[in-house]
Amino acid sequence: MAKSEKIPEATITRLSIYYRQLELLEFDGYRMVSSDKLAWLSQGNPAQVRKDLGYFGGFGVRGVGYDVIDLQAQIKQILAINRDWNLGIVGVGNLGSALLQYHNFSERGFKCVAAFDNASDKIGKVLPSGLKVMDIRGLDSAIEEFDIEIGVITTPPSAAQTVANLFLKANVNAILNFSPTRISVPECCLVQNIDFSVRLDILCYKLGREIVN
Amino acid sequence: MAKSEKIPEATITRLSIYYRQLELLEFDGYRMVSSDKLAWLSQGNPAQVRKDLGYFGGFGVRGVGYDVIDLQAQIKQILAINRDWNLGIVGVGNLGSALLQYHNFSERGFKCVAAFDNASDKIGKVLPSGLKVMDIRGLDSAIEEFDIEIGVITTPPSAAQTVANLFLKANVNAILNFSPTRISVPECCLVQNIDFSVRLDILCYKLGREIVN
Repeated sequence: MAKSEKIPEATITRLSIYYRQLELLEFDGYRMVSSDKLAWLSQGNPAQVRKDLGYFGGFGVRGVGYDVIDLQAQIKQILAINRDWNLGIVGVGNLGSALLQYHNFSERGFKCVAAFDNASDKIGKVLPSGLKVMDIRGLDSAIEEFDIEIGVITTPPSAAQTVANLFLKANVNAILNFSPTRISVPECCLVQNIDFSVRLDILCYKLGREIVN
Repeated sequence: MAKSEKIPEATITRLSIYYRQLELLEFDGYRMVSSDKLAWLSQGNPAQVRKDLGYFGGFGVRGVGYDVIDLQAQIKQILAINRDWNLGIVGVGNLGSALLQYHNFSERGFKCVAAFDNASDKIGKVLPSGLKVMDIRGLDSAIEEFDIEIGVITTPPSAAQTVANLFLKANVNAILNFSPTRISVPECCLVQNIDFSVRLDILCYKLGREIVN
């Protein structure tokens, strides 16, 4: 297996996308898939598919393709999603509430095990998922109690950095940030930002120029 | 100005991120910013900042930096976000409802002008934003009536392709897809996918290897 430091994040992103397509292929009854087909389904190109998988050893048979079930298992192992991960969500507004009921998370082994807020009218409320909203002031002890491994921030931008600091202080070093601002973290911490507006900006840029993508 | 076809999407993504930092800088009272500082705030590097802006003519003064307000105006024009855009959202579940109340959209000129669903218990309901949920069967005429330019899909994966086809049929050629599946569209259509799980997969890959990012 290649040294992980040399693997581009874009490759990891595409592995995740291949994985989703492999699930759909299995659902549709396919047992094998060519790099051409997998590329087409994932809106990529076959050479890129082979290169991405090649970082980790290949997995395909020339002229035959990839075993749909086997390749899923390989990618699950590479992405470390062959186990469950515990998520703690801070900010039970509209977006936080939506995420707490987002079936796609639980189906993929991302378990929302705790939800936090600082608003007195939200603390103690029982959510449709059965979780009770906890006081953000109890984050530190809850992280240990619920074994929270990934912190999810869905607060307004003004609170995002404070929440990130609380996660770091409690040794949660992986953060999914939905707040439309960047947060500063030390090098030991992993952050993935999801800013919807950035995606809209990209659409507008292209629309504005009427570029055919 | 450089030919737009040659500008990488990563550059457009970063311009969007620089823009957000420039807004914060203005709010904090800064009038000028160096490429070093803008890079640091955006978690990039100064050479990349200069290269990204260089595609469009530069805008900075050597040894002085960039004018915070002027650069915002330039980026707004490049990204074509110096005007409002009308969004139509299909799928008024938890995520759709959250987006319809997402202040960050309206603040940035992304106006949610119509919401659609196919469930009889949702059609006709008045949302907190004041919008009334419309029957998806009326999408075609509503697109003309409300001048919808960007379609937003927040349906379950099984409905995403059908909704994309409806948008295309009604000449909406830009789609923001929140459904965790890829949709197939002709080359004339622009799609940006936002799949939360892909971001989580990237975190897990890194966590699984304990890579310091």
